[in-house]
Amino acid sequence: MPASCCFFSCSMHMGMPTSDVAKCVQKFLWHDWKVSCNPSSYLKSDYGTHSRFLNNKSSQREQMGRIHCQALGIEDAPSFPVGEKFQLDDVIESQQFDRDILNAVFEVARDMESIEKNSPGSQLLKGYLMATLFYEPSTRTRLSFESAMKRLGGEVLTTENAREFSSAAKGETLEDTIRTVEGYSDIIVMRHFESGAARRAAATASIPIINAGDGPGQHPTQALLDVYTIEREIGKLDCIKVGLVGDLANGRTVRSLAYLLSKYNDVKIYFVSPDVVKMKDDIKDYLTSKGVEWEESTDLMEVASKCDVVYQTRIQKERFGERIDLYEEARGKYIVSQDVLKVMQKHAVVMHPLPRLDEITVDVDSDPRAAYFRQAKNGLYIRMALLKLLLIGW
Amino acid sequence: MPASCCFFSCSMHMGMPTSDVAKCVQKFLWHDWKVSCNPSSYLKSDYGTHSRFLNNKSSQREQMGRIHCQALGIEDAPSFPVGEKFQLDDVIESQQFDRDILNAVFEVARDMESIEKNSPGSQLLKGYLMATLFYEPSTRTRLSFESAMKRLGGEVLTTENAREFSSAAKGETLEDTIRTVEGYSDIIVMRHFESGAARRAAATASIPIINAGDGPGQHPTQALLDVYTIEREIGKLDCIKVGLVGDLANGRTVRSLAYLLSKYNDVKIYFVSPDVVKMKDDIKDYLTSKGVEWEESTDLMEVASKCDVVYQTRIQKERFGERIDLYEEARGKYIVSQDVLKVMQKHAVVMHPLPRLDEITVDVDSDPRAAYFRQAKNGLYIRMALLKLLLIGW
Amino acid sequence: MPASCCFFSCSMHMGMPTSDVAKCVQKFLWHDWKVSCNPSSYLKSDYGTHSRFLNNKSSQREQMGRIHCQALGIEDAPSFPVGEKFQLDDVIESQQFDRDILNAVFEVARDMESIEKNSPGSQLLKGYLMATLFYEPSTRTRLSFESAMKRLGGEVLTTENAREFSSAAKGETLEDTIRTVEGYSDIIVMRHFESGAARRAAATASIPIINAGDGPGQHPTQALLDVYTIEREIGKLDCIKVGLVGDLANGRTVRSLAYLLSKYNDVKIYFVSPDVVKMKDDIKDYLTSKGVEWEESTDLMEVASKCDVVYQTRIQKERFGERIDLYEEARGKYIVSQDVLKVMQKHAVVMHPLPRLDEITVDVDSDPRAAYFRQAKNGLYIRMALLKLLLIGW
Repeated sequence: MPASCCFFSCSMHMGMPTSDVAKCVQKFLWHDWKVSCNPSSYLKSDYGTHSRFLNNKSSQREQMGRIHCQALGIEDAPSFPVGEKFQLDDVIESQQFDRDILNAVFEVARDMESIEKNSPGSQLLKGYLMATLFYEPSTRTRLSFESAMKRLGGEVLTTENAREFSSAAKGETLEDTIRTVEGYSDIIVMRHFESGAARRAAATASIPIINAGDGPGQHPTQALLDVYTIEREIGKLDCIKVGLVGDLANGRTVRSLAYLLSKYNDVKIYFVSPDVVKMKDDIKDYLTSKGVEWEESTDLMEVASKCDVVYQTRIQKERFGERIDLYEEARGKYIVSQDVLKVMQKHAVVMHPLPRLDEITVDVDSDPRAAYFRQAKNGLYIRMALLKLLLIGW
Repeated sequence: MPASCCFFSCSMHMGMPTSDVAKCVQKFLWHDWKVSCNPSSYLKSDYGTHSRFLNNKSSQREQMGRIHCQALGIEDAPSFPVGEKFQLDDVIESQQFDRDILNAVFEVARDMESIEKNSPGSQLLKGYLMATLFYEPSTRTRLSFESAMKRLGGEVLTTENAREFSSAAKGETLEDTIRTVEGYSDIIVMRHFESGAARRAAATASIPIINAGDGPGQHPTQALLDVYTIEREIGKLDCIKVGLVGDLANGRTVRSLAYLLSKYNDVKIYFVSPDVVKMKDDIKDYLTSKGVEWEESTDLMEVASKCDVVYQTRIQKERFGERIDLYEEARGKYIVSQDVLKVMQKHAVVMHPLPRLDEITVDVDSDPRAAYFRQAKNGLYIRMALLKLLLIGW
Repeated sequence: MPASCCFFSCSMHMGMPTSDVAKCVQKFLWHDWKVSCNPSSYLKSDYGTHSRFLNNKSSQREQMGRIHCQALGIEDAPSFPVGEKFQLDDVIESQQFDRDILNAVFEVARDMESIEKNSPGSQLLKGYLMATLFYEPSTRTRLSFESAMKRLGGEVLTTENAREFSSAAKGETLEDTIRTVEGYSDIIVMRHFESGAARRAAATASIPIINAGDGPGQHPTQALLDVYTIEREIGKLDCIKVGLVGDLANGRTVRSLAYLLSKYNDVKIYFVSPDVVKMKDDIKDYLTSKGVEWEESTDLMEVASKCDVVYQTRIQKERFGERIDLYEEARGKYIVSQDVLKVMQKHAVVMHPLPRLDEITVDVDSDPRAAYFRQAKNGLYIRMALLKLLLIGW
């Protein structure tokens, strides 16, 4: 979660009173990352068919004469007046989302769950083209995005071999590739092997970029679907107890989840992992600074009995180097099985980012508290919501 | 054609009188494989737009309260009252289809042939999403399915590298993959390298599965398009003479075709092949038990002069081991050329599952009796028919 | 630009007076390559919805009873009566296009630029299916074609691994593959590794073929978008000065561009390249025979100061063999940088077929005269125009 390179744009209508603009600029200079606030998006009644053709980054910037202001740092989430909606320009990293934005995105995702085949909602993105520019294969994520786009009536251009497309083969820069592909599509979903690639793409592109994972960096849509799933399954995000289990040192999903949970009140987090792959200090320090209670444990059964959510992850053998004995021990110790289910509360759920190997036994699947396949499906709704927000606004 | 693992589901309306249910169960316990009969599909007038949203396996099962009964074995095809329609849940293997079901599918395929661009028929599957989950590349089959879906207004999610998606790379089970992908789509067309994979997928999925080939196992849509082509070309399936030529030991297409032809009356089958790759006894015994006349021959010219259909297949060199002399001899002896055309009857046709190498000479292509490219095209209509039947019923 | 194997078909209505047919045949025997003239395409009012279903090569040939005449050679472009429209059957090579056809295609491309999302124009190709049959990956070209098809409401079947599909793996001929794929689609966009493959495909197919590059052979849509870009950027194609820079010996784009520019009046071409990769004599001789003025130079600055268009291309190291010193010298000498921009005229532009490495410095990108990304975008409009013309006519 690199604090050093956080920047987002705040965009406003030219019609906005200058004093408000000044306030906005000032506000952002204090804030930890930039979000773009677009007061025009209040005016839902003004949002007719026509706006579809304006509503991408470049055209909006040109046609609405927005002002962009920038800020750095990662402290103190911005608090916006109730009812204000934010114009998403890109989806690059989890830090982009504060509690208000998360709530707003989740509301849209909830609407997406009830869109029926051939209903007007299923044609929301008719005429829009999404390019999936994948520099490394991730079929699960790609299919989820493509399904989301098609469920909303949009179309898709796919490339799974983007590496051949560009640099590796012919030495083209990512920036040049983006400039070419943005000519063919309305939004780019990008998976890359290098941390920071999504941000570079967004800085170049005049159309929205969604980061579908950039190396060891970010995978923000996974983080969002995790939080959304907790809310859908448990019914709330404040006053919950969450156990993060498995490889906490290397899993970007658990790191992002811990980070996002800090936005809510009275959250308690349990870190359950072998010593070798314990949660790193940066996240622990961050939680402490935010007043989030956390605790480390090696006792899965005890934690499971207390938690609303047991979030299981895979422990990778290669992290243990030559200490295969430690790996085997860890593996056996942190499996979610019927035994764990027995101590879990009735309303609690088991989550997992998938794919799973044997860290959750197959006999858990039929228990109603096994939420991981519902969680995967929630990824569809979150991605539908983000595509809608990025392409046609609120 | 493994007899051991045959099971299909019979599903009925809760509204059906109990005695009828009992009869149905009883009937199926006698039958060789289960088909699902859905009396509700009589009620075409009840089948409005709404049913589109019910009409997948899971929702039907939940909402209609069907009863599932199971049976094993491969003897005696079920005979259903005339006019009754069968609800297809999945397409897994050729044995699933009896004469009545074949006829019904062929009728739908025939309708598909006359669907014109931008006609209402071309929008039958609007709003539906098909996922092509291919664990090994088979571009021909994949394009045929994708064309079928798009010709009916449906949409497609494609993955050709499903191996990277799951087990090989990360060890995910097929079952877990299916549970994820079924969240993104309405039907899954699966190609797999392991025999029985399609059945496992169908057992897991709550949406329909079509087997597009599972290793040395089944490729039922190929079998159906072969039979359909004979009916379209010759005008009948009873009282026909069919010569199966080439590698009969290893070709799953000729094995399936022989099996399906046994459902018809007064069919005579000629097996024309080198000794090394003769038709195996299981099929010959099965035909005998069904009263189907068959004969082995090494004289292609004589057989060709008698047959309505000459079904040619490729002979693979590697089957002959070190006896390359035998291979060369076999190859030369079983080529369909102008000479063979000369002895064939005017109404007879040459078929081939494609791709062909030199086992049919190129100068045969322009003869009206060369049916193999029409046969490939029929695959499109059969797949359109199956997609329609699986997604929106009769 | 092989002169030896040029053939196109001239197709006419049966209803045409015999004397006119004779004239047409005669005319073509004199001409350098065959174009197909279809007088029926005058009759725009006759071109209703119905014609959509006729309008592919095979059905037109069958239903309109056209006469096909053939001619060889590459001299003297045909001159058609003003107002006559040409029916494009396939797009195989640059030589197919004379000035009138180019103008007509460019007019359609211009219309394509203004098609808005969800306007009637965006549904022009609704119900049509394009297959992209790529025997070698070229993601940029593929995405451009697929975007073009989808921007017009059409659908796409994609294969990037066409090599596995056919010959390499199983020995199927290109002709057989085409016959199969034409059963699944309405138009085929083909990329192949062998020169002449597109022509072979077109000779087999009953549906239109577009050559998206066949080995060292042709890439006609690139050539068209280059000329179109010059017209869009400079406003004219007569009386222009064009500098072709870089590897002129091996780049098929500069060769095609030089060829097509010879169709216009008072064009002056400067060839700017290291000795090792100079423009070959065939093109120079052709230009001379057409009365096109050309000049060789090694002074990029001087040429840039005179030209309307500086068309930069990449110099590949491997062309220099062991003379790496010559390569390094050439590379440094022919870079388009701010220095070159300074001497260029205000209205002039820099073009590049992309991808670029360092032969244009990144600081050139923000100059309004940097036309290369607009050039890439023009590829979209040219391909939209060609798809429209091939599928539904003028």
